[in-house]
Amino acid sequence: MAVYRTHTTGPEAEHALGLLVPHGTQQLPSQTAGVAGIFHMAGITDDLLAVEQLLLERSRSRSALISAASAHTVRSGGKRLRAALALLAARLGNYRLEWVIHPAASAELIHAASLVHDDLVDQAARRRGRVTVHTRWDNDVALMVGDYFFALAAGEMALSPDPRIITFYAQAVQTIVEGELSPVTHITPLETALAQYYYKTGAKTAVLFEAACKAGMVAGQGSEAEITALGRYGHDLGTAFQIVDDVLDFVGDEHTLGKPAGNDLRQGTITLPLIYAVAAGSSPELHAIIEQSQPDETTVRQAIEEVIALGGVNRAMEEARRLIVRAIDHLAIFPPSAAHRALIDLAHFVIERDI
Amino acid sequence: MAVYRTHTTGPEAEHALGLLVPHGTQQLPSQTAGVAGIFHMAGITDDLLAVEQLLLERSRSRSALISAASAHTVRSGGKRLRAALALLAARLGNYRLEWVIHPAASAELIHAASLVHDDLVDQAARRRGRVTVHTRWDNDVALMVGDYFFALAAGEMALSPDPRIITFYAQAVQTIVEGELSPVTHITPLETALAQYYYKTGAKTAVLFEAACKAGMVAGQGSEAEITALGRYGHDLGTAFQIVDDVLDFVGDEHTLGKPAGNDLRQGTITLPLIYAVAAGSSPELHAIIEQSQPDETTVRQAIEEVIALGGVNRAMEEARRLIVRAIDHLAIFPPSAAHRALIDLAHFVIERDI
Repeated sequence: MAVYRTHTTGPEAEHALGLLVPHGTQQLPSQTAGVAGIFHMAGITDDLLAVEQLLLERSRSRSALISAASAHTVRSGGKRLRAALALLAARLGNYRLEWVIHPAASAELIHAASLVHDDLVDQAARRRGRVTVHTRWDNDVALMVGDYFFALAAGEMALSPDPRIITFYAQAVQTIVEGELSPVTHITPLETALAQYYYKTGAKTAVLFEAACKAGMVAGQGSEAEITALGRYGHDLGTAFQIVDDVLDFVGDEHTLGKPAGNDLRQGTITLPLIYAVAAGSSPELHAIIEQSQPDETTVRQAIEEVIALGGVNRAMEEARRLIVRAIDHLAIFPPSAAHRALIDLAHFVIERDI
Repeated sequence: MAVYRTHTTGPEAEHALGLLVPHGTQQLPSQTAGVAGIFHMAGITDDLLAVEQLLLERSRSRSALISAASAHTVRSGGKRLRAALALLAARLGNYRLEWVIHPAASAELIHAASLVHDDLVDQAARRRGRVTVHTRWDNDVALMVGDYFFALAAGEMALSPDPRIITFYAQAVQTIVEGELSPVTHITPLETALAQYYYKTGAKTAVLFEAACKAGMVAGQGSEAEITALGRYGHDLGTAFQIVDDVLDFVGDEHTLGKPAGNDLRQGTITLPLIYAVAAGSSPELHAIIEQSQPDETTVRQAIEEVIALGGVNRAMEEARRLIVRAIDHLAIFPPSAAHRALIDLAHFVIERDI
């Protein structure tokens, strides 16, 4: 079993981690319990529960339809990484839950809104193993529930202690939306493909991580330098997180991912492992899939093998690790503390996770 | 020509105004130039242009697609009634453009966002005579442009001088969204139909009028009593505005409306004239259309005639006039001023407009 692993999920996930985790490297004890352990050791578990409670309260609506679809969305909420980032950032400064709970909830509400609309654009049937809102109800409900979450986010921001927080989140949403309409269209030349991929990844994931970190630091009354440093940490962390997400689409298993692996290839979505694989060499299987609009399952499976064989996955993971090192460097201006430790552990977790 | 009319638009509009305007009643000179004249006499024309300029600037995006679709949306923007309400409300108090410009722009951005998503749900081909975003581009672009406008609105709110303004707008958006998923399903009994219709109308139009008025009054440093009074004015005004909109679907002409008349009947949307017509009596034509899912044009035309003949339009207009009287009553606590006069004139305009 890999040193950093926290739970086993099957041979494919093992395979994934065989690629992701350098066995026998330095052990970080707090990670043995996974992300929940990191939050526990930093003492934010109760406060994260308070955020969760707030999200559930807010999702109640006068409309029974919105209430049901909103509760469904909140319950599909994942690990609350964005809320945790806001709480941990605030812990680096002058921490008061009442200052940071609304910015933390805002990040999760924006995330929920964008996922619901994102799934609608992609017509994705499932997310994290649960059916999506537009599948369970219909497209109109998904459209309105997304809007409702944006409105709830605006309401939470209004309760935030500083208008800069609203600006961070509003700009993040603008970028998320711009990114949604900017697919990666080039697989070569490498430079163009990488520029498109990093813009897309920034918009899709990194800007909201960044905004949550900065909002938390503002709520913790941090200095401008501290807010900037945390923002950079969040951006690098979010980019690495998305790269790992894209890698898991090649090496993760359906049970762990909550959606079938190879999804990106099937939908013609160009991600970092594919870009690096094509740059490293070429193969008929890869060309076949890039040129097909509806590849069959055999082609998808062969293409996955090719991308791995050409080192695309390994090179993407190297890049993720480089970003994680840089993310941790941004934290150097802060003195040691439980929150500081947790942010470092979280950075390690991001590249070692199998989900 | 009717006393209050500001421009002629054809025989059908004349017919409309024959029903709407009591000829020979008190003349209000500032209305002879229409809504632009009201704004001019209150001295807010330049400031409304500043809002317009801000909206155009904000609609520029890194994404060429979003820029184009946003500019299209801003240019389809109508009379900027919501921005004008915010400016006029602020003028009742301590007016500074830099305090009120962002709340005023927020109202228009929220309105634009909700129209784009509303047209997407309805799959409306045109709005105010211009093609809708999802028709010109596609559904995904319309989804994202709506989100983009919500994000722009959040950004503007962050520049507002008081967090209450954000709360007003955030709650308005929640209600708008709830209303979008709450169609009027009952045409009888009258009480149920009216309750559903007024809830829907409130959500669709009145809450944003109300929020714009309250936001403007907060920006104008008004007292709680003044903010409440302006909010009530806005709610009544917005409800009357929507009733007239629904009436114009029976008596307006396609050229003036920018969409075909009888649209609501064709789509099975139950509005106040129809509710009152059914309550007043019944006719085979009306029953035919209520029970048909895709009525032909002859049926629609006959149903329109029936609704008018049964007094549905007149009774709806009586209700709109009653609300306008009440709206103006809410302004009684303010001393006379150009802005006060303009708010009264605007209330008259709402029930006398033919578009």
